[in-house]
Amino acid sequence: MLSGPSGVGKSTVVTEVRRTHPEIWVSVSATTRRPRPGETHGRNYFFVDHAEFAAMVERGDLLEYAEFAGNFYGTPRGPVLERLEAGTPVLLEIELQGARQIRASLPEALLVFLAPPSWDELVRRLVGRGTEAADVIARRLETAQVELAAESEFDATVVNASVEGAAADLVSLMGLSASDQR
Amino acid sequence: MLSGPSGVGKSTVVTEVRRTHPEIWVSVSATTRRPRPGETHGRNYFFVDHAEFAAMVERGDLLEYAEFAGNFYGTPRGPVLERLEAGTPVLLEIELQGARQIRASLPEALLVFLAPPSWDELVRRLVGRGTEAADVIARRLETAQVELAAESEFDATVVNASVEGAAADLVSLMGLSASDQR
Repeated sequence: MLSGPSGVGKSTVVTEVRRTHPEIWVSVSATTRRPRPGETHGRNYFFVDHAEFAAMVERGDLLEYAEFAGNFYGTPRGPVLERLEAGTPVLLEIELQGARQIRASLPEALLVFLAPPSWDELVRRLVGRGTEAADVIARRLETAQVELAAESEFDATVVNASVEGAAADLVSLMGLSASDQR
Repeated sequence: MLSGPSGVGKSTVVTEVRRTHPEIWVSVSATTRRPRPGETHGRNYFFVDHAEFAAMVERGDLLEYAEFAGNFYGTPRGPVLERLEAGTPVLLEIELQGARQIRASLPEALLVFLAPPSWDELVRRLVGRGTEAADVIARRLETAQVELAAESEFDATVVNASVEGAAADLVSLMGLSASDQR
């Protein structure tokens, strides 16, 4: 499982892993948020309404779930367990709020924290194009400070100095050869 | 531990438990949000800045923590364990996002879900005075639908039909006499 602070580049690293290691299965989350242009049901997310999401919660069908800005995101349990039973390498990309639930729901998972190369680099990414209000950015940096401290809860850390390097480190932690491109 | 959907009346029930059972110790959360008028440090919350909160996360000093609207809330581990070791009955009031962490961090805890007497009653509470935008209220109701489904993750349910009744039920679940007023 890969997690880490907002803005650290989790999805970019996962995209690189997909590219270099298509044999790794990446979990698809269920969400109540509306699809964005170009997003496909079943590939980017399983787009469900709140009633369907509530039914999944009630049945215990989710390995983890969390709410962000009124939308719910969760990891369906069934597809993950099927792949693990079949011996397929599985990668979960999960926001920090949900990551701590994985330790309980999937105790055999290796919890990997994606860290920025430096605090300054994370600030640069979170400040972005500088088009946002100063108080929004200040709050984002305060949040990042706490998110970085969560590293101590993880089994391993990968530093995102380069996307290629971080993807290779992650693959190596999964016990796969970094050059393995079946 | 008491949790439940937003608007279900958790803090009102806990206040009633405090009034009728002063021998029960109620945990005080740490938070990065600013104090509101009338709130006292150490009684309502431990008000800390993001650096202090991050240090608590890093040291593993929190039984659970979660973020809401840019503010962090967490339950300091030390005071809870001290009371438990001393044999003092302990009550934790925790938002749903943090509640699931308690099962892992405090496995002996009894997780109690505070439920509204009916969906209509929860709607009435969430709609409130009707002064808010329709889309805000619609989103709140959608969120409540998922929050209610979380009941299945809990050890017991208390229905908040009346504050006095819910407080008595909770005290009874804690193994204390409802009429116990030392």
